[in-house]
Amino acid sequence: MSQYKHDLTIVWGDCDEAGIVFYPNFFYWFDSAYQGFLRSKGLSLRDLQSRYQAVTPLVDVGANFRSPITYEDVVTIEAEIGEWAERRLRLNYTVKCGERLVATGHELRAWAQVVGPGRLKGAAIPEEFKALLSR
Amino acid sequence: MSQYKHDLTIVWGDCDEAGIVFYPNFFYWFDSAYQGFLRSKGLSLRDLQSRYQAVTPLVDVGANFRSPITYEDVVTIEAEIGEWAERRLRLNYTVKCGERLVATGHELRAWAQVVGPGRLKGAAIPEEFKALLSR
Amino acid sequence: MSQYKHDLTIVWGDCDEAGIVFYPNFFYWFDSAYQGFLRSKGLSLRDLQSRYQAVTPLVDVGANFRSPITYEDVVTIEAEIGEWAERRLRLNYTVKCGERLVATGHELRAWAQVVGPGRLKGAAIPEEFKALLSR
Amino acid sequence: MSQYKHDLTIVWGDCDEAGIVFYPNFFYWFDSAYQGFLRSKGLSLRDLQSRYQAVTPLVDVGANFRSPITYEDVVTIEAEIGEWAERRLRLNYTVKCGERLVATGHELRAWAQVVGPGRLKGAAIPEEFKALLSR
Repeated sequence: MSQYKHDLTIVWGDCDEAGIVFYPNFFYWFDSAYQGFLRSKGLSLRDLQSRYQAVTPLVDVGANFRSPITYEDVVTIEAEIGEWAERRLRLNYTVKCGERLVATGHELRAWAQVVGPGRLKGAAIPEEFKALLSR
Repeated sequence: MSQYKHDLTIVWGDCDEAGIVFYPNFFYWFDSAYQGFLRSKGLSLRDLQSRYQAVTPLVDVGANFRSPITYEDVVTIEAEIGEWAERRLRLNYTVKCGERLVATGHELRAWAQVVGPGRLKGAAIPEEFKALLSR
Repeated sequence: MSQYKHDLTIVWGDCDEAGIVFYPNFFYWFDSAYQGFLRSKGLSLRDLQSRYQAVTPLVDVGANFRSPITYEDVVTIEAEIGEWAERRLRLNYTVKCGERLVATGHELRAWAQVVGPGRLKGAAIPEEFKALLSR
Repeated sequence: MSQYKHDLTIVWGDCDEAGIVFYPNFFYWFDSAYQGFLRSKGLSLRDLQSRYQAVTPLVDVGANFRSPITYEDVVTIEAEIGEWAERRLRLNYTVKCGERLVATGHELRAWAQVVGPGRLKGAAIPEEFKALLSR
């Protein structure tokens, strides 16, 4: 199964007063890892718009936190395709700090066309896109 | 069941190039609504630390997105206690734009004690805290 | 001189491990206050695009911090027009916590037209826009 | 003069509806580069607290924007010490996209001791710290 991963160092501004990462940041990282995944296949979110007139908005997301991370920790974000549906793709994420499991998560994304500011319409995922991400 | 809600206006910086809210912001709002909920009961996250030496880190979170929101939309965030467990509480969230359902979500939070920078230890939720949030 | 202000309550996620606001948030608030200012005059950033095909990107910004603010503080952000130039407007900001001065800041914004993704071209500010903001 | 730099790729969530970086992110990057600078000298913000009981809050910050950056641009953030005062240090920042100048900025930081939640007290910068950053 096609995969992508990258490392990042936790910065001061990502942490809260309790000294641990403020959790919405995990979703910023998931979203960034999705973009990194596309990039590793020669694609960008802008390519999706220019080639396919499509965006991939979120339908459902989640995260499960196993152990805290803190300032200066170096973590690895892994992304992989969990499932393809006709109009949706599921991405699974794993965050580790060395060998220690920090969090798992998912993004269920729709394939949609922008039909106006903030207005989207679902569509079938092109086979070409699936092939690009799976190779 | 005890509830809390507040309104907010979507600002430019909350939206992305596709003209819709960048989704990690929903979790920032959930977390803020949890704090608003506590505040409406006369509590703050700092009170939890001074009274109970406790923090309430996330164990599991999720969101389901029904319809997009965009710049200048006025949305309402509703929070309510979904469930009390011995060492955990679940908060359920609903985001609406007028009558339109935008998103639902949850936060499952542990009751934990800070035992060092980034180091936490689970503990039973005090009955007093449950009573304060339920009245 | 035309003015705008709004209040906000500092949330947990705005603060860092030292227990004070992580400073980039001030600029998020300045930008939001600019939008609130426009809104109070019946305008939005999208109106600028539809009416004038214009955006108002930043040329220069700054902030001077006088006293720290922390979780649960209620602060007031004030915005006012500091100066109009042919192609630029300067906004001055003041942040207070009750009577205590927290920070001052400014945004020098250009009047520009979007001529491609991430590509902008300067233009003269329409008199109509100046009149709307000054009334 | 002692320097530090690192690269970063602009992600979707850093950009706004106009397709350019939402400007408060520059300050997040400045702050992160300051931390990277410390790290390159074997220090962290936590070391400042444990060794010197000190934090380095912002007194004055600013940025001047020369050309826009957008999604997928790879930019370089450079940090260097601009000036040492008895109780303050000034950091200068430069952001480039290849050879193109994107922004310059500064952070004037105080040397301060945490004397309570959100309460700080100025102090002289230890010679040892200056020596560590200058070598």
